[in-house]
Amino acid sequence: MSSTSLAFSGSTFGKLVKRHKVGNGGKSPPQNVKFRSVKAELSTEKVRIAILGASGYTGAELTRLLVNHPFADIALMTADRKAGQSFGSVFPHLDAQDLPNLVAIADADFSNVDAVFCCLPHGTTQDIIKGLPEHLKIIDLSADFRLQDTAVYKEAYGQDHRAPELQKTAEYGLTEIKREAIRKARLVANPGCYPTSIQLPLIPLFKAGLLELKNIIIDAKSGVSGAGRSPKEPLLYAELREGIYSYGITNHRHVYEIEQGLSEVLNSNVTVSFTPHLMPMSRGMQSTIYVEMVPGVNVDDVYNTLKSSYTDEYFVKLLKKGDVPHTNHVSGSNYCKMNVFPDRIPGRAIIVSVIDNLVKGASGQALQNFNVMFGFPETTGLLYQPLFP
Amino acid sequence: MSSTSLAFSGSTFGKLVKRHKVGNGGKSPPQNVKFRSVKAELSTEKVRIAILGASGYTGAELTRLLVNHPFADIALMTADRKAGQSFGSVFPHLDAQDLPNLVAIADADFSNVDAVFCCLPHGTTQDIIKGLPEHLKIIDLSADFRLQDTAVYKEAYGQDHRAPELQKTAEYGLTEIKREAIRKARLVANPGCYPTSIQLPLIPLFKAGLLELKNIIIDAKSGVSGAGRSPKEPLLYAELREGIYSYGITNHRHVYEIEQGLSEVLNSNVTVSFTPHLMPMSRGMQSTIYVEMVPGVNVDDVYNTLKSSYTDEYFVKLLKKGDVPHTNHVSGSNYCKMNVFPDRIPGRAIIVSVIDNLVKGASGQALQNFNVMFGFPETTGLLYQPLFP
Amino acid sequence: MSSTSLAFSGSTFGKLVKRHKVGNGGKSPPQNVKFRSVKAELSTEKVRIAILGASGYTGAELTRLLVNHPFADIALMTADRKAGQSFGSVFPHLDAQDLPNLVAIADADFSNVDAVFCCLPHGTTQDIIKGLPEHLKIIDLSADFRLQDTAVYKEAYGQDHRAPELQKTAEYGLTEIKREAIRKARLVANPGCYPTSIQLPLIPLFKAGLLELKNIIIDAKSGVSGAGRSPKEPLLYAELREGIYSYGITNHRHVYEIEQGLSEVLNSNVTVSFTPHLMPMSRGMQSTIYVEMVPGVNVDDVYNTLKSSYTDEYFVKLLKKGDVPHTNHVSGSNYCKMNVFPDRIPGRAIIVSVIDNLVKGASGQALQNFNVMFGFPETTGLLYQPLFP
Amino acid sequence: MSSTSLAFSGSTFGKLVKRHKVGNGGKSPPQNVKFRSVKAELSTEKVRIAILGASGYTGAELTRLLVNHPFADIALMTADRKAGQSFGSVFPHLDAQDLPNLVAIADADFSNVDAVFCCLPHGTTQDIIKGLPEHLKIIDLSADFRLQDTAVYKEAYGQDHRAPELQKTAEYGLTEIKREAIRKARLVANPGCYPTSIQLPLIPLFKAGLLELKNIIIDAKSGVSGAGRSPKEPLLYAELREGIYSYGITNHRHVYEIEQGLSEVLNSNVTVSFTPHLMPMSRGMQSTIYVEMVPGVNVDDVYNTLKSSYTDEYFVKLLKKGDVPHTNHVSGSNYCKMNVFPDRIPGRAIIVSVIDNLVKGASGQALQNFNVMFGFPETTGLLYQPLFP
Repeated sequence: MSSTSLAFSGSTFGKLVKRHKVGNGGKSPPQNVKFRSVKAELSTEKVRIAILGASGYTGAELTRLLVNHPFADIALMTADRKAGQSFGSVFPHLDAQDLPNLVAIADADFSNVDAVFCCLPHGTTQDIIKGLPEHLKIIDLSADFRLQDTAVYKEAYGQDHRAPELQKTAEYGLTEIKREAIRKARLVANPGCYPTSIQLPLIPLFKAGLLELKNIIIDAKSGVSGAGRSPKEPLLYAELREGIYSYGITNHRHVYEIEQGLSEVLNSNVTVSFTPHLMPMSRGMQSTIYVEMVPGVNVDDVYNTLKSSYTDEYFVKLLKKGDVPHTNHVSGSNYCKMNVFPDRIPGRAIIVSVIDNLVKGASGQALQNFNVMFGFPETTGLLYQPLFP
Repeated sequence: MSSTSLAFSGSTFGKLVKRHKVGNGGKSPPQNVKFRSVKAELSTEKVRIAILGASGYTGAELTRLLVNHPFADIALMTADRKAGQSFGSVFPHLDAQDLPNLVAIADADFSNVDAVFCCLPHGTTQDIIKGLPEHLKIIDLSADFRLQDTAVYKEAYGQDHRAPELQKTAEYGLTEIKREAIRKARLVANPGCYPTSIQLPLIPLFKAGLLELKNIIIDAKSGVSGAGRSPKEPLLYAELREGIYSYGITNHRHVYEIEQGLSEVLNSNVTVSFTPHLMPMSRGMQSTIYVEMVPGVNVDDVYNTLKSSYTDEYFVKLLKKGDVPHTNHVSGSNYCKMNVFPDRIPGRAIIVSVIDNLVKGASGQALQNFNVMFGFPETTGLLYQPLFP
Repeated sequence: MSSTSLAFSGSTFGKLVKRHKVGNGGKSPPQNVKFRSVKAELSTEKVRIAILGASGYTGAELTRLLVNHPFADIALMTADRKAGQSFGSVFPHLDAQDLPNLVAIADADFSNVDAVFCCLPHGTTQDIIKGLPEHLKIIDLSADFRLQDTAVYKEAYGQDHRAPELQKTAEYGLTEIKREAIRKARLVANPGCYPTSIQLPLIPLFKAGLLELKNIIIDAKSGVSGAGRSPKEPLLYAELREGIYSYGITNHRHVYEIEQGLSEVLNSNVTVSFTPHLMPMSRGMQSTIYVEMVPGVNVDDVYNTLKSSYTDEYFVKLLKKGDVPHTNHVSGSNYCKMNVFPDRIPGRAIIVSVIDNLVKGASGQALQNFNVMFGFPETTGLLYQPLFP
Repeated sequence: MSSTSLAFSGSTFGKLVKRHKVGNGGKSPPQNVKFRSVKAELSTEKVRIAILGASGYTGAELTRLLVNHPFADIALMTADRKAGQSFGSVFPHLDAQDLPNLVAIADADFSNVDAVFCCLPHGTTQDIIKGLPEHLKIIDLSADFRLQDTAVYKEAYGQDHRAPELQKTAEYGLTEIKREAIRKARLVANPGCYPTSIQLPLIPLFKAGLLELKNIIIDAKSGVSGAGRSPKEPLLYAELREGIYSYGITNHRHVYEIEQGLSEVLNSNVTVSFTPHLMPMSRGMQSTIYVEMVPGVNVDDVYNTLKSSYTDEYFVKLLKKGDVPHTNHVSGSNYCKMNVFPDRIPGRAIIVSVIDNLVKGASGQALQNFNVMFGFPETTGLLYQPLFP
């Protein structure tokens, strides 16, 4: 097989200079077995990846996915506060992998990098990205480039946007909805976890005109990994286990992103009720969405629209009628599973959508966007099935 | 102190024949310390209690509370499938207590019993209670006598009610709302856990006319102990940990009880949306209630009405404005904590209410009702503070 | 009943000036019920308590227990970093109680205090206690006064002891073993959680000469609340849930306290193997202790010695032969439950001991010691049964 | 690339008749993306797999791994009590996969099957396997063929072995230790989870003569998935969460398997102390092993022997000196991570070993053995990195 047998014509990937053969990722096979890597049969160039802010959970999750990605190679990892440490000492679950040591972002050399995943905190990310070399494609997992309207950004985040020009070039990375734009983008603003789980079911329904714009009530439940790895009292095991509470009632920042997505479809401003809850699970997110149907529309119509919208999608799964999505059935995978149910109140329906907040809600969708941007099969490196129990 | 010093005049309790002194509960104090039970100072008669269906979680929880109740003595415990066993072998957390062995209900002798707590399964309870001697006061923790309209009962439970005459005599045991009726009742139908957490905030607000009857959306989250101790696959640790899902969407049985309570206040049929969720906690329940306020009413009005309604109640606590109730802050206690928040959607409010489903949602409220029925101070045996962390 | 009916002759308590009647603890009973506090029947003075370092878990747990203690009144609570805040804002599970606001320790007035519970960090506690007025009785929950030999203290804690004279007056507060000394003590060094769970079974067995001094292997498993409330990455929910690991292998600080206790009994230096594990539970501790019996001794001998040692103790429970102690069966209570089993290796036995690390392993035993020091019945305020499930 | 480019000469696999091209597993790629499966580049025959007893956790876990295995195709799944159901209805986390419906084992057609994974209960498995066609290679995950001595089998399982001749042909599937024998075997007895985690560190150390045979104390902690999916009261969430207890003290069945493995190495009967604990985690297992070193041997010797034994192994990882293995760092992966520490007791060492009980402790090692038996690279389908957090 030649080195061009995997050429994805027209893709950015095809334009990369051939640098090194795709091997078995630096892993030493046991010498006493006839070891033959599956990947060894493929021969092509790999995209050289940088992960900025690799010491957080989304950085770790990206790494978990990328180490088995046949067309990507992690070339650079930054983490200012852990600079100089090995990645395996920060995330020992990945200590069997051969990965670059962590460096401070100020010391990062991007000359041998093709693509950047940005896992930095909200607010400072925009400054970092503004300074990145032009040749890099960027997938930003922070919230910095998600809101198109900088006035809304200021309302949500309490500060002026410091890269408004760059903001205009960013594409919103809800893959199934924005695939074509993502394909051509240099900078992708990867969606938040809540907005992903909520917009995936709602956008096709609003496009089809099935739902009223009023009284949209979203009650969401999240695992705690979304809050990050920085130690804070409310995130302690002893505080969280065996309990639940609402947080960010009335004004969680993600609500702006949700309303932006829905308003764009409708060409009209939508206001939704959104109440997230923190509960004792590490990964996982469920959005229970209470909606009012347009007169004449029934739950079957809603179901069928979701069905036709997602029947060809690998990662979005509408369950069989009556089956209830469980967060435990998507854990560790890039799936979004959903279903719709009749409400007791006539004319209303209940939509349930579940994702793994770290995968489809963050790093998995980021990798999916990477695949789209570089012309790889969209599922590459994302075929992990959910881990249960 | 004479044996009458605790006489609660006019109460049923006062009419009990004096049978035995209140001692220290059969516990042997260490002989090498000067041990002197606090209870020993009190001298009065104790109410003799039977717990039917003592091998379930609500039976165990009642037992936990009753062993420290100064005016109650557990005289009889039944559990058909565990007949002949010691209670401590079925619930080893209480094995240090001196309790009667479990007997089959058919072998139960009620002649030395004053009050019965019925912790039997729905459906068969009504037959058992129908056959109990007249002299007994009964607190029924099943759903059998909660629904006043036997047609609604049939719709909810799929069978004809077999004790409709007895049903007419039953009082609904939502203590803070129905205290006066409970005081005179022989048979109290102890409320379900969901209905308790939902009606406590909603009833005063509906009484005050602050809320619209439409678009009442209730998203509730429950610990798993409410599902009982009978082994079922969905209740296994490996199935439940680290995840959440909705169950009973559209038609959970408790919705009838909730609608009954609200409709009674309003003299009008109310239909609510009610979606319970099962999550990884053993005890605890949160109801997040999304409501529409009557034009002209604001969140402060709602707050103030709750405040004036419950300011004198020991077990119902309205938090300070802005404070969020956590299920972890009521665990093991009889408290219901609640608060109200403005919704993003103008004119709507979000009410959050938390209880321990086994205490205020079951056995604690049952004991509270017992105290009311027998004229004891309502908090007797219920002063446990929440166990945290 | 007169105010002397509870006089515990010869106790410190009896010498307290009568200051105020024991009421119902400042709780407002609901005005629409005939409320009559049980405590109201008792008339005596209350001991005025200070809790130093009240913003940690042991401080909160003491508070939970003390608010229902009929002879104690919390008069002062300190927490330097939370000074000025209400206790209920720091620990909302106790926000229904009427408690003094937190003050900085430098601002504390001890003139109206009779007894101090010290819940401060190791190392600085000795300085604080050294400066406390002479009239105060002190129960110290830190490790500062547990080790009698200041050389061992230095080895374990890496610093010189700064109050060696005071150290000589401290009694070790393992209540069942040291009760008589505690009764007369001014300063009690409350034992660590691991040492409590390990010494309670081992000391009577060593006293009886049943065990060899060699090959004592202790594998202990702890809930995370013992690590405190200060946010640290390893204590995060996402890090701890669903997993276990050993920590402090070889040289956990508690091993010195364990060896001190055993060596004292034996008049000989003992070295034990001690490996603690951190696991996903908030409260609870199990010590699995693998021992070698002296030739001719069998497991029945071990069992019988434990039985005779603890048969009169309220809080130490030897289970029936063959029954296995569970941490879940002591949660929230002051019990230590234990049992002994034959090992497969002839001549060896396996002892299992469980406690709630925050109760018998910390605040509960502290209160038990308080009761002993003040001549109250030892179980006062400690009759809580375990909370399960 | 021809269909022979993956021929593993001399392997059973090479002898399989070419039946069908390796495609993308029946998954429908999204039609609106340029989708190109990585697997599509490979062309070879697939081994046709049957999973017997597919409705349990080990069956589900095998399925999770096999659906991404490039050289295996699940052709048959049996589950007597769920016959006729879709696999996705029994395990909805895998409902996005195209899998055969469950059939009763009596209705199974093995003519189009090459290899069988047997996930049936202990005791009945031997009858099933005895009746399987000769052409099948079998990996048995039950305990039925693990014990070579049928007298020991009878002692452990309380019944006569009913396939003693077949037993003689079975190879014990501890891959890293028995690789060569496994390569030639028709029937592999896949090891138990505890024995895997314990023998992997101990066998090389006993081979090297570093450890004494006496006073080997093994304290093991397991997640609950090892107990299976059949509903039993002790496995309920409400019973297990937030607690730990020992079970099978003295005589857990796995001890025979452990002793067999060690005795074989030593040509001498070994008796070990083995106490398993059940704790609140779904997956994961830690064995803390307390051993006595032969005089003159120190912990560095032990470390170095483990290092040289496993340096070429992909799945067995000796951590850096001082690093502590966590169960959370192997979850979902086939790794066994281990380390050794000095004990406080001179001459003793503490070995810690962690695995995911469902992967390296069951289905992962089974697949590893399958790869060995069929001459595939041993890591095929097993490159999943641990899922954390």
